[in-house]
Amino acid sequence: MNLQDVQALDANDPLAHKRSEFLLPADTIYLDGNSLGCLTVAARDRAREVVEQQWGNSLIKSWNAHHWIDLPAHVGEKIAPLIGAAPAQTIACDSVSVNLFKLISAALTMQKGRTVVLSQQDNFPTDLYMVQGLSQLLGEGACELKLVSEENIEANLDESVALLLLTQVNFRTGRIHDMQKLNHLAHEKGVLVLWDLSHSAGVMPIQLDATQTDFAVGCGYKYLNGGPGAPAFVYVASRHMKAIKQPVCGWMGHKAPFHFDPQYVEADCIEKFLVGTPPVISMSVLDAALEIFEDISMQQVRDKSVALSELFLTLVSLQPELKELQLISPQDSRDRGSQLAFSHPHAYAICQALIEKNVIADFRAPNILRFGFSPLILRFADIWHSVEILAELMANETWRDEKFGRVGKVT
Amino acid sequence: MNLQDVQALDANDPLAHKRSEFLLPADTIYLDGNSLGCLTVAARDRAREVVEQQWGNSLIKSWNAHHWIDLPAHVGEKIAPLIGAAPAQTIACDSVSVNLFKLISAALTMQKGRTVVLSQQDNFPTDLYMVQGLSQLLGEGACELKLVSEENIEANLDESVALLLLTQVNFRTGRIHDMQKLNHLAHEKGVLVLWDLSHSAGVMPIQLDATQTDFAVGCGYKYLNGGPGAPAFVYVASRHMKAIKQPVCGWMGHKAPFHFDPQYVEADCIEKFLVGTPPVISMSVLDAALEIFEDISMQQVRDKSVALSELFLTLVSLQPELKELQLISPQDSRDRGSQLAFSHPHAYAICQALIEKNVIADFRAPNILRFGFSPLILRFADIWHSVEILAELMANETWRDEKFGRVGKVT
Repeated sequence: MNLQDVQALDANDPLAHKRSEFLLPADTIYLDGNSLGCLTVAARDRAREVVEQQWGNSLIKSWNAHHWIDLPAHVGEKIAPLIGAAPAQTIACDSVSVNLFKLISAALTMQKGRTVVLSQQDNFPTDLYMVQGLSQLLGEGACELKLVSEENIEANLDESVALLLLTQVNFRTGRIHDMQKLNHLAHEKGVLVLWDLSHSAGVMPIQLDATQTDFAVGCGYKYLNGGPGAPAFVYVASRHMKAIKQPVCGWMGHKAPFHFDPQYVEADCIEKFLVGTPPVISMSVLDAALEIFEDISMQQVRDKSVALSELFLTLVSLQPELKELQLISPQDSRDRGSQLAFSHPHAYAICQALIEKNVIADFRAPNILRFGFSPLILRFADIWHSVEILAELMANETWRDEKFGRVGKVT
Repeated sequence: MNLQDVQALDANDPLAHKRSEFLLPADTIYLDGNSLGCLTVAARDRAREVVEQQWGNSLIKSWNAHHWIDLPAHVGEKIAPLIGAAPAQTIACDSVSVNLFKLISAALTMQKGRTVVLSQQDNFPTDLYMVQGLSQLLGEGACELKLVSEENIEANLDESVALLLLTQVNFRTGRIHDMQKLNHLAHEKGVLVLWDLSHSAGVMPIQLDATQTDFAVGCGYKYLNGGPGAPAFVYVASRHMKAIKQPVCGWMGHKAPFHFDPQYVEADCIEKFLVGTPPVISMSVLDAALEIFEDISMQQVRDKSVALSELFLTLVSLQPELKELQLISPQDSRDRGSQLAFSHPHAYAICQALIEKNVIADFRAPNILRFGFSPLILRFADIWHSVEILAELMANETWRDEKFGRVGKVT
């Protein structure tokens, strides 16, 4: 395999034109869209519009004139087709963490007599912390976090479990769960399921409705490209909409917010998950960022995602200098999301040395080098060059320079 | 009094130069800064910088390179001097509503054996809803909302009360509470106090430390001019910092977020109130907006605020056409914040007719016309013209046109 072979892949890539809809830094290969997605032209333009025209000129009138009040629902409906959700079940609001708190609380309230939230030891920490915080608030008799390893999830689904809380694609390894199978097994035991889609939404087909998912949350700033700290989203299956009650009752979740009634009466729809005044600027940017998905299918995105990571693996296998990098992601592309993780004792320094060469990967403690593949910005040739650069710095041991040795605050 | 007298006030206004630091719509008198503050030049520039340069070009590296990770604490420290808080007690995060939930939960946990949250019947609804949501989650035996009228607050401070929850300046009437006195009376009964500063922060001196306030929250998008749905803030007195525990435990509140430890260990400082990834774009805009306060004192702002509202009242009293507007704000400026509210059976239509004349006031159900006075953007001459326009449309009964009659969704 040579560079020409790889360039031929780009020439035949049905998503190749999408790259031009982004504003990308020059001379950079960005393999970290799973941490922070890139800026689109539409998002840049909307940020200017919402700040300078809507806020600056129309001020308070924009709540109606520019439909600010409808943004959470409008953005939710734009996300819905990406996650296999029929309308009126998805809304954009708050952070993934806060949304987890709402849904975990709500699920426990629905599951009288059951107190266990079952999750995975290596789930993303904030998912686990939310259960711990709730457990401290309610008392352990009312909420108990049970952590098991991935292979023991099924065996621990029993009548004590109120909620199964999982992230569809693991943030370290990229391993993907079988949503359909786990929903089915959980439901057989009367267990509700809450999926965190932070590392899957926007990069692969997801079928929340078809798999009978109960609840989901997801992140706006990774593969959805909504910008740093973009609003997150909540999904609640319509069959639960009437019964579900979430405790973070804010005025935007009221049936009639502008009646200013001292008594809370929840909206009888997904809007009950709204809390405070929506973050209009960041919500508008996310709204614009989502336009990129309007004329493509998630299967196309997935196909390219798999092709990119397979190419990366193939090229790595051809480089003797890269033998020390140990793949901790599943070898089979069907079992992983859009990332590859490798362990190496000096992963931090290697990551820093790569960044110095303008190949942006990321590090996850204690020893993981993580590469994310954003199919809408990456060319197959980028994969070729990134592996070349990685092989060169491993061969030269460039990463041993002490300037790369410090473990940073944020990586 | 004539227009020349009023223009003389502008000529002698020590804050007059501040207006030029804003980007204001042409030919508009904006009396709604208490709903949504205006865009500053600095905020506009920062929005472009954070989106186009920081996010667009530096991408994930910005967490360190552009200090994104420090924004919540940095913005908190900028707000601190405006609210009379020594360092390390204030942080910017989430919405007012979510922050209320954290603090009400935390206060109840600290006050073993006490279950009542005492508040005012006409407090802003979201403040009350948060207690109702918590009460539903914990059970009424663990959290009970007791609502009294303003004059009965003191009489109801007793040993059953865990927390006194008040908004310093009432959102409808503008009536201001005596923070010092109520903190003192509450503490005598072992009651903690949580102040919502949404309608006071940025427009008057506030002395949280000197009055021994326990907790406070406040809004970023009103007098702080942080933009629509800007992040809110939390204040916790340092004497409570060690003991306080809040249940919405997210990864950003962890002592070491990037260790990705499955066990939550809270930060031992105000950072324990952080939850999810900070909303970088809106937090940066708020950060820039706060620069406007760097070279002025809150007493100067208060002095002008009082002078503006006194002028408004005087001019209204001189117009016979305005006799039907009944002042529901305190007559004495010492008893009110930076707003005036009038009741009128047709307040909604009058408000719409004013807006059509480019005088932006707001309506609060069922019959309140509300004027907010932002001292950094308003000229005394604006007050003159707004009362002239109001008097004219009342004299001509312009507001009776049926196009003004519909009660809108957002006002």
